[in-house]
Amino acid sequence: MNSTGSAGKSWAWPGTDWTRFNSFGHYLRSAELAHAGLFDIVFVSDHPALQRDNTSRPLHSFDPTVLFSAIAARVPDIGFLLTASSSYNSPYNLARRLATLDNISGGRVIWNVVSSFNPDIAANFSAAPLPPRDERYRRADEFVEVVKKLWLSWDTPSGEAPETRIWDPATARKIDHHGEFFDVTGPLNVPIGPQRHPVISQAGASDAGIDLAAKHADIVYASLFNKQAAFGYKAQLTQRALAHGRDPDNIRLMPGLVVVLGETREEAYRKHEALHGEGGEESLVKDFFKRAALTDIEGLDPDKPIDPAVFKYTQDQARPVGFSRSFAELTEAENLTPRQLVRRVDGGHRLAVGTPREVADTILDWWRSGAADGFNIHIPVLPDGIAEFNRTVIPLLQAAGAIPTEYDGSTIRQRLALPDPA
Amino acid sequence: MNSTGSAGKSWAWPGTDWTRFNSFGHYLRSAELAHAGLFDIVFVSDHPALQRDNTSRPLHSFDPTVLFSAIAARVPDIGFLLTASSSYNSPYNLARRLATLDNISGGRVIWNVVSSFNPDIAANFSAAPLPPRDERYRRADEFVEVVKKLWLSWDTPSGEAPETRIWDPATARKIDHHGEFFDVTGPLNVPIGPQRHPVISQAGASDAGIDLAAKHADIVYASLFNKQAAFGYKAQLTQRALAHGRDPDNIRLMPGLVVVLGETREEAYRKHEALHGEGGEESLVKDFFKRAALTDIEGLDPDKPIDPAVFKYTQDQARPVGFSRSFAELTEAENLTPRQLVRRVDGGHRLAVGTPREVADTILDWWRSGAADGFNIHIPVLPDGIAEFNRTVIPLLQAAGAIPTEYDGSTIRQRLALPDPA
Repeated sequence: MNSTGSAGKSWAWPGTDWTRFNSFGHYLRSAELAHAGLFDIVFVSDHPALQRDNTSRPLHSFDPTVLFSAIAARVPDIGFLLTASSSYNSPYNLARRLATLDNISGGRVIWNVVSSFNPDIAANFSAAPLPPRDERYRRADEFVEVVKKLWLSWDTPSGEAPETRIWDPATARKIDHHGEFFDVTGPLNVPIGPQRHPVISQAGASDAGIDLAAKHADIVYASLFNKQAAFGYKAQLTQRALAHGRDPDNIRLMPGLVVVLGETREEAYRKHEALHGEGGEESLVKDFFKRAALTDIEGLDPDKPIDPAVFKYTQDQARPVGFSRSFAELTEAENLTPRQLVRRVDGGHRLAVGTPREVADTILDWWRSGAADGFNIHIPVLPDGIAEFNRTVIPLLQAAGAIPTEYDGSTIRQRLALPDPA
Repeated sequence: MNSTGSAGKSWAWPGTDWTRFNSFGHYLRSAELAHAGLFDIVFVSDHPALQRDNTSRPLHSFDPTVLFSAIAARVPDIGFLLTASSSYNSPYNLARRLATLDNISGGRVIWNVVSSFNPDIAANFSAAPLPPRDERYRRADEFVEVVKKLWLSWDTPSGEAPETRIWDPATARKIDHHGEFFDVTGPLNVPIGPQRHPVISQAGASDAGIDLAAKHADIVYASLFNKQAAFGYKAQLTQRALAHGRDPDNIRLMPGLVVVLGETREEAYRKHEALHGEGGEESLVKDFFKRAALTDIEGLDPDKPIDPAVFKYTQDQARPVGFSRSFAELTEAENLTPRQLVRRVDGGHRLAVGTPREVADTILDWWRSGAADGFNIHIPVLPDGIAEFNRTVIPLLQAAGAIPTEYDGSTIRQRLALPDPA
């Protein structure tokens, strides 16, 4: 639910207000539409920096905790998945903000832990450069540990009023954490909330990232382009979860899925092209390799299979490992030409471009085969794209019994059938 | 509007729910009542720590930015004055949260800058002790400078959609700040808001605090017990404002005022005692010296004038200078006994205990004489105390022409007739 939509040019889409990324009413309307469509969750990614590409919509503007709190006061039922950096926050402040939002929303918060990979973020916080990935992930791990301890440090007040003391050291416990990165005494000054504590999400794709997800995450968001990649990723996640003593069945895998709809597939293809500018398929191909694949377009014949080596990646590269890895796996497995590839992936995530029936079928196929537990649906143009998805795809998913027809009043932890934290 | 009310025992007040400090509905109801009474602003102080005194209400629980955002989505018109520490936040994140809330609320945010004096706060953020006051105030000064630069770094998007670029370096400007404490590149990823940027409040009472307030604050909140102290404080503030090249008329002085109402003064006195426990005036006196005056009660005869020397303070004491200074000035000026003093001051702020007419008269007297531009009204028991104040005191203030009878739809900056920031 970021900005004006997942498409870079969504800000300039005909019939929309280009300034809406800066309007609470726009986000409220988007959340209301998601609620009307019975979405489980609305999600925002986040970078505390103005992105450099000023021809694309400003992807991150309003602070997610503040934005979602205002929406939570107006929209019931729906969960709020928000991104916050473990590199550029302090555990006490962030634990407190999320616990506050979880209480206000009645147990609807999911925290997406990111360690931040963008040097422009680092420059807004210090003269020091971004720490190396290893250090960021060690810090993320300890950060999540501290936040969890704080979230469970003060028992929920309930029952008859106590005689004299509103808490005591047995009910509000110091955590006395002293680690590599953090020294935090506690307890948190917000009591345990309606779902004990917020659900945790992670999108790790590097080895360190997958390990962090396997250790802490209830929800894993990933960039997975085909079922083979999804099963491979799931196997790796399962193995790491078991190594951490966790039941892998308690992790929900929700890959990203960009949806472009048309009454016919041709219509959907034309819309897909229009979302990237005015140059038709040719400029779609060019734009794709310039923006998403992050590699050199020179020498690529649009009609010859791509050499997977152009997507080579290393575990210590500066940019995220996940996107590079997914591209390499997909082109390796399916021998795709650039012209074919641009209809399979958009903005770094799997693309479903076609009729509502085709989109519903690919969602159902992945879900029924166990390749995914859910999907993070990217809507190219907000807010109207949600209304279109509600009208055309949701009824097909409901008819197939894949999603419910009403909310049941539960917390997001209950709705995802996740266990209570210890 | 903190917790269950300004009285320490408000959590256990008959007929109230002791767990309400942990309920969004409670704060929402309090804000709705304040709105019904045409209050300009609701205020929360803040400590990111669970306070040690567990017989008193937990004064600070929910994060103020998250709480006020949810309330802003439900309650129109009223301003939100929230406290956030310059010692335990980063300028980019805090500037962004406040700018987001200012946008969501339509220009109703006031940031109360505090440097944090409580070692329990320091222990939630690091193994390092609280920095000395001088360093904290230097950091606060630079923090506010950086935040202001960030707030004005990206022009509000408006008008026709641009051809290609949503911003450029002339409309979204790097701030390239490099100072003693902070290195921040910018720009902020939230554009300039409806009142350009949030209003700034400060409660400085030490020399360094008054200087910070005189340099940056639009609103000054202070602990002032008599008009003589108010005029003295105002003179000092004026002098420092002029030294910083500011027009002192652009600073609004709003001292704290604890209000305890009864149909008769005797009834108000009994209520005042009950708010402190069951021991009547004797225990009121004891409790007062134990909690508020922060000095030794031994050797104080309740009926003999107090030696002002018991309130001696130094500029570098650990606890806030403001409360100590105000006590010393009041007892020096008026030769009060403990029994008299406890009816003049409560919880570190001036007390108005009596009938609605008496309370309205002291408010009007200070306002007409220019000793104050407004008051930070402390309500002993929330939320019902606001309803009582609305019913009994507000009509008297309206009849005197001191406050309006409806909101006019302006931003909080406009309502307080403050100039636009440069």
